[in-house]
Amino acid sequence: MDEIRKVLLSVPLFKSLQEDTLENLIRSASLNTHTKKKILFIHEEKAERFFLIKSGWVKLFRETLEGDQAVIDILPQGHLFGEMSVFEGGVYPYSAEVVDKSEIISLPTNILKSEMEKNHDFALAFLDVMAKYRNRQDNEIEHRVIQNAPQRIGCFLLRLEKEEKDGIVRIHLPYDKTLVAARLGMQPETFSRALSKLKKETGIRVQGAYIEMDSIDPLASYSCIACSSEFPCGDLGKTGCSS
Amino acid sequence: MDEIRKVLLSVPLFKSLQEDTLENLIRSASLNTHTKKKILFIHEEKAERFFLIKSGWVKLFRETLEGDQAVIDILPQGHLFGEMSVFEGGVYPYSAEVVDKSEIISLPTNILKSEMEKNHDFALAFLDVMAKYRNRQDNEIEHRVIQNAPQRIGCFLLRLEKEEKDGIVRIHLPYDKTLVAARLGMQPETFSRALSKLKKETGIRVQGAYIEMDSIDPLASYSCIACSSEFPCGDLGKTGCSS
Repeated sequence: MDEIRKVLLSVPLFKSLQEDTLENLIRSASLNTHTKKKILFIHEEKAERFFLIKSGWVKLFRETLEGDQAVIDILPQGHLFGEMSVFEGGVYPYSAEVVDKSEIISLPTNILKSEMEKNHDFALAFLDVMAKYRNRQDNEIEHRVIQNAPQRIGCFLLRLEKEEKDGIVRIHLPYDKTLVAARLGMQPETFSRALSKLKKETGIRVQGAYIEMDSIDPLASYSCIACSSEFPCGDLGKTGCSS
Repeated sequence: MDEIRKVLLSVPLFKSLQEDTLENLIRSASLNTHTKKKILFIHEEKAERFFLIKSGWVKLFRETLEGDQAVIDILPQGHLFGEMSVFEGGVYPYSAEVVDKSEIISLPTNILKSEMEKNHDFALAFLDVMAKYRNRQDNEIEHRVIQNAPQRIGCFLLRLEKEEKDGIVRIHLPYDKTLVAARLGMQPETFSRALSKLKKETGIRVQGAYIEMDSIDPLASYSCIACSSEFPCGDLGKTGCSS
């Protein structure tokens, strides 16, 4: 219970919940560990629960009748998903699948919906989170128009956490390359060719799940020239909501 | 004044405005006619006004340092733009340019912001509009991953108004082909090749600013097979807000 409380309190959107709503949410929460490939819900299914990632990664996607898959997002810990169903006539606007072993907190959507209806501060916090997400989506669309494939990979890397030691900058790939390709909307072959080009242009080195470089500058100047913002990106930071 | 009132009342978001706020908004509004290419505001400029299209078309876009342009949207009459600045630290999240002779109503953002802070119903209406927009953006990202260029043009056409007469279905292109290409994130040459392929695959005919066909079915089955929704699209309809 205390563990669930701690995770819930770390979500920015939940900071403006009324005390009794928070307690109600904690009492109705359940924490489950899921293994890779577990489908949590399907696009257009009736939504009675929404979710919060305590640890791990979750992929949001949609599928066509022919079975082609479009990855909408891949979310890390601390993020909500399925919460948009409160606006979508009570159905999920995408499917959700566990990427790697994950601890997921499940919560009832009706508490979220009634809090939104009665608590003005909570509605304003929700608006703020939605606006941040909207800005991110606008960036995503912008990048898909303007950036070439190597620049898109560079942009993805620049937005991950970096560590610097002995003059070497290291970036840890959060999940495997096939998923990174899917997240960026690229075929695996396109991704592979684009990564080779990016290595040649910027001097980055791929070491297993790590990308290493002597300085971040060549990567930033190569990728960010095809963006309307400057590095470091202004929209970075946790929104705590499906993104 | 009565003209402005009528247009404002047609915006779904404004239906939950308090009476005195609506009067205040109408008193502070100004209606201007702008010609093609007029820049209304620039990305990241301080935002004191937001806008409503009474007639015409407005392009929202961003530009890289190198001058490449990404079109975020092209909006028809009845739509708001610049209103997202109330969430973005008071700056515009994109630039706006008049596409063709347009009548634009300009309104002060501070009235919008204070109404949002004091009127819970208005905040809920704003959330609803944002959720619809988010769903549209998710569709946009999905289509850019899954649909090929001819299917994307087909999808764009299917979402426009159709008229049927003497067994012929006609769709009016709302603006010129170069802009349609930009709206779809395509180079003009790609657009031109993709349109030829679409004509061959579905039997549609291009007659100046009109697209004609004997039936909508071949176009729908060709394009909608690469989509997670079925035709006719569930998300169509006016949101009255930047989209």
